[in-house]
Amino acid sequence: MNVYLDYAATTPVDPRALAVMLPYFTEHAGNPSSMHAFGQDARAAVDRARVETASLLGARPGEIIFTSGATEADNLAIVGVAFARGGEQAAPGAAGPGGACRRHIVTSTIEHHAVLEACRFLEQRGYEVTFVPVGTSGIVDPDDVRRAVRPDTALISIMAANNEIGTLQPVAEIGAIARERGVPFHTDATQWVGALPARVEDLRVDLLSLSAHKRYGPKGAGALYVRTGTPLVPLQRGGGHERGRRGGTENVPGIVGLGTALRVAGETMDDEAERLTALRDRLIDCALAIPGVALNGDRVRRLPNNVNLSIEGTDSQSLVIGLDLAGVAVSAGAACSSGTLEASHVLAALGVSEERAMSAVRLTLGRPTTAAEVDGALAALRAVVTQLRRAA
Amino acid sequence: MNVYLDYAATTPVDPRALAVMLPYFTEHAGNPSSMHAFGQDARAAVDRARVETASLLGARPGEIIFTSGATEADNLAIVGVAFARGGEQAAPGAAGPGGACRRHIVTSTIEHHAVLEACRFLEQRGYEVTFVPVGTSGIVDPDDVRRAVRPDTALISIMAANNEIGTLQPVAEIGAIARERGVPFHTDATQWVGALPARVEDLRVDLLSLSAHKRYGPKGAGALYVRTGTPLVPLQRGGGHERGRRGGTENVPGIVGLGTALRVAGETMDDEAERLTALRDRLIDCALAIPGVALNGDRVRRLPNNVNLSIEGTDSQSLVIGLDLAGVAVSAGAACSSGTLEASHVLAALGVSEERAMSAVRLTLGRPTTAAEVDGALAALRAVVTQLRRAA
Repeated sequence: MNVYLDYAATTPVDPRALAVMLPYFTEHAGNPSSMHAFGQDARAAVDRARVETASLLGARPGEIIFTSGATEADNLAIVGVAFARGGEQAAPGAAGPGGACRRHIVTSTIEHHAVLEACRFLEQRGYEVTFVPVGTSGIVDPDDVRRAVRPDTALISIMAANNEIGTLQPVAEIGAIARERGVPFHTDATQWVGALPARVEDLRVDLLSLSAHKRYGPKGAGALYVRTGTPLVPLQRGGGHERGRRGGTENVPGIVGLGTALRVAGETMDDEAERLTALRDRLIDCALAIPGVALNGDRVRRLPNNVNLSIEGTDSQSLVIGLDLAGVAVSAGAACSSGTLEASHVLAALGVSEERAMSAVRLTLGRPTTAAEVDGALAALRAVVTQLRRAA
Repeated sequence: MNVYLDYAATTPVDPRALAVMLPYFTEHAGNPSSMHAFGQDARAAVDRARVETASLLGARPGEIIFTSGATEADNLAIVGVAFARGGEQAAPGAAGPGGACRRHIVTSTIEHHAVLEACRFLEQRGYEVTFVPVGTSGIVDPDDVRRAVRPDTALISIMAANNEIGTLQPVAEIGAIARERGVPFHTDATQWVGALPARVEDLRVDLLSLSAHKRYGPKGAGALYVRTGTPLVPLQRGGGHERGRRGGTENVPGIVGLGTALRVAGETMDDEAERLTALRDRLIDCALAIPGVALNGDRVRRLPNNVNLSIEGTDSQSLVIGLDLAGVAVSAGAACSSGTLEASHVLAALGVSEERAMSAVRLTLGRPTTAAEVDGALAALRAVVTQLRRAA
């Protein structure tokens, strides 16, 4: 058996996206900044991908900044807005009426490392960060965000869907609070975009990060949506690319792959969400039938493809390795943590016991996942759990 | 005719590099941070590319940080070292003995925009930058660098080979001065690496930026070499990737393509430099035989593939468009400037007249370039120049 159930860590590139990318490595390999035909051909491809990306978000093409991925997008959103509003290289008036410095950020305890580390970078520079907690279900309470906002708040950054436990956050409600208070609102929507509708007007967000490789596009490509008028200091400087907001020759094949991947995701999203939700629920129900298995994160308000379990009498590493040997690829938590074996900060934030946190395993389904694969994974899970408990 | 003579702007991906990349988009699309077999397979590919990259530079694999390209590498080198030595998030002792803040940078007037804009970012934050001038031949005088260094100099950044006029800088001599003064030395070697030997010990550099897409690798991949012990504050933060120096899921296909492209370049470099130098000289000699044509940049100390001409009675834009219509793709200067039509800052730094600067055209040869293509481009150039002068 060879079953990949780690689609939240990364996805293979959709054949349609790869087919569109290929010519831009070779016969159409121009630099979009070049005036000649080779260059203009590449420029047109980037422009088309910008329209595809903006279209899924209901945004204007000029509001899309292509980046090397969601981590760069998160860093640019958080540090870029904080620098602009904190009086560091502000555009005139960016700090707000009276030019007052705003050096306070509101985020949550369950953000991705890219957001948390960008916030820590700011803390080291004298900014203050309020980390809003979550309840046991792993969902941020908008009222907690409301209470955390201060007159000097520069930015609110709350993720759309959690990458470990898949919980969906009340983005639109938080966006309404942000608008009411006149504070820019960023959401890391890496796991959400392409899985669920993500129109920026409905979500009421001013900045939104997304990644190609989490949605059947290539690694090394992502984007930051920035609503027109949002103050932002560019961090990667160079030759004026992306309207001066992100220097560096555009990753043309990567951008083209991102555009196509998002277009395909938009077209298939509704059917796929329904199909995956059914598979997910089957997986959850059968897993919970194993004694000593608990689900982490809200049962209903979660991504269609996410299952995060804690299994008594086992540990995460042994589960991942045991399942890997059985031909089933799953994650011990966030794959982005470079194989660290510390307890997940997300599970810690839910207030679960150390033991429960250290026995967590994440199974995430994807476009190629079939019911037979889910059943096979369940059989393997039962066998591995039995084996581990026997050995304990 | 369809002749591409803009290889300094970008290159097509070598078929050997593309072949190695392809499986990592699809069947081997794991995330290197994942513990399972799919992940470890991707991790091994990244490790191999790191060895290939380090090998060309005579560096240790752990001294290579993969980035999204040379612009990111330049920004990370300059801002990362400046922040570390300027007392902003310094590692203990990074600012130097006594913890004194070092907030002075030495660079040159002919650097790439990525370096110049990173320096301007620092200037806006209260750092001081000395821009060392160049002579009419476009080469930095190491004595000028020596004179510019101060007790509070945090970093010297001088490019290896200029991207517009191809002049080779006395990197090793500047490196010797930097070592003597105990100042970290960065070089933007984007145009140099893979064209000429680039062993960091011979160049005496502490940091070196390189790009994949300038050397028959893919866009969206590059690297920064950082000598062990060099203080550096990471700018893109996330899940601890690249030993905590650059967060974000690795662009596996891009990195693999970079590694292979650099390995191939290393194997073919000597022969190719000789072949291109002969073609370059033929192009220069024949172009200079056209009345009113002058070469920009030193005649001998220049990249094997670079020709930069100013042509009386014409202007850059008309030359590029006229040649493009004739099927010859060339550049009006730096392609990285996003099609701007301002006079090149590099030509301005040489002290040439505005008229000469505004009539410059860059022809850069590449691995696929043949003698017949050079001759065809020369015929087209003669025809376009005659036509433009007639119309004037």
